[in-house]
Amino acid sequence: MNRIAVEKKVLNENQILADELRERYRANGVLCVNLISAPGSGKTALLERTLERMDRAERVAVLTGDLQTENDARRLAKFGFPVKQITTGGTCHLDARMITRHLADWKLEELELLIVENVGNLVCPSSYDLGEAAKIVLLSTTEGEDKPLKYPSIFFKSELMLLTKIDLLPYVPFDAGLARENARRVHPGMEIIDVSSTSGAGLDLWMEWLKARRARVVA
Amino acid sequence: MNRIAVEKKVLNENQILADELRERYRANGVLCVNLISAPGSGKTALLERTLERMDRAERVAVLTGDLQTENDARRLAKFGFPVKQITTGGTCHLDARMITRHLADWKLEELELLIVENVGNLVCPSSYDLGEAAKIVLLSTTEGEDKPLKYPSIFFKSELMLLTKIDLLPYVPFDAGLARENARRVHPGMEIIDVSSTSGAGLDLWMEWLKARRARVVA
Repeated sequence: MNRIAVEKKVLNENQILADELRERYRANGVLCVNLISAPGSGKTALLERTLERMDRAERVAVLTGDLQTENDARRLAKFGFPVKQITTGGTCHLDARMITRHLADWKLEELELLIVENVGNLVCPSSYDLGEAAKIVLLSTTEGEDKPLKYPSIFFKSELMLLTKIDLLPYVPFDAGLARENARRVHPGMEIIDVSSTSGAGLDLWMEWLKARRARVVA
Repeated sequence: MNRIAVEKKVLNENQILADELRERYRANGVLCVNLISAPGSGKTALLERTLERMDRAERVAVLTGDLQTENDARRLAKFGFPVKQITTGGTCHLDARMITRHLADWKLEELELLIVENVGNLVCPSSYDLGEAAKIVLLSTTEGEDKPLKYPSIFFKSELMLLTKIDLLPYVPFDAGLARENARRVHPGMEIIDVSSTSGAGLDLWMEWLKARRARVVA
């Protein structure tokens, strides 16, 4: 079998498991979102601010992926919600099998929102369906406005783009209008929210987006 | 053949081509360096500042990789040196075959320095030898100090780490000392240079490093 045939086989196997996950989320009324970005775009910082704003009674859990270290799970566990680290070893993305395995001892019927933080990588995670209802891509103001054009797949597949680190706009040569325009060239109509985990700007809008998106699942 | 066997086969085939490239660089006295980082860490901006400081008589060329767009080649062509874009389609890294193909109509005997700018990705490019004399990893001050621990392979394999965007240090919660400590935990003795393509800080040291590294090849 050649490389492309194997890749297809791997992706087909992943798709079967992802479809099973999607059906389990649906049956249990769980919204699953899959956060994807380059390393250092601020996924974990955003999740810290997100969990901090959640009521402890909310039924939220997080799976966070990295090649190595439990750092992110440690940072996120402080907020009192269930958090698990998925350490991939050398693998450059999360796949549906890793999610299934790490969900084994969590009761989905007790959850309403499952946030998956993918490995920091703008390329490979876009090919692996995790059964999520929505992919969310983060782009930071320190990265350059042409990232949506250079990495179109993930911007095309994401329901929402979070433009992060907007507190740094005065200090970086970043044209936010052009970044939004590029994102919408790849994905017309994509929702975009500007946020800063440092200043708190935009976090209310993000929390509202999440709430509205959860309402659509429960309905 | 299973996935791991195919990956091994792909990497073995890549190694044969990379070894051929390495021998051609050696025979022609060319220093080849392979720049690797997350998307948006400032590889292209650094190369703009680097080419700008080179004498036009210097025999320098650049191959720059992206999934899509010719943007980087356009930015770099302004400086009058030979530049080619390698557009990978969906592929998350450069491989030795792409390099060989794009070098076909360049005369290596007329070059002294070949700079390869890899696809923005901290994971996959670390597995693909391109025949380079040295890998150089860029980490920006906006990304978080624990990246060397989370993505150890590329930090272990790189001869030099460039800590980029140091002009942003007053505005980001980044501990440069801790970042260097983490890098050297993964790779004891690794060389580290702090740079800013915006303020120009550290660029002289980087140009000196490059010059000294070239001298080692010619010798």
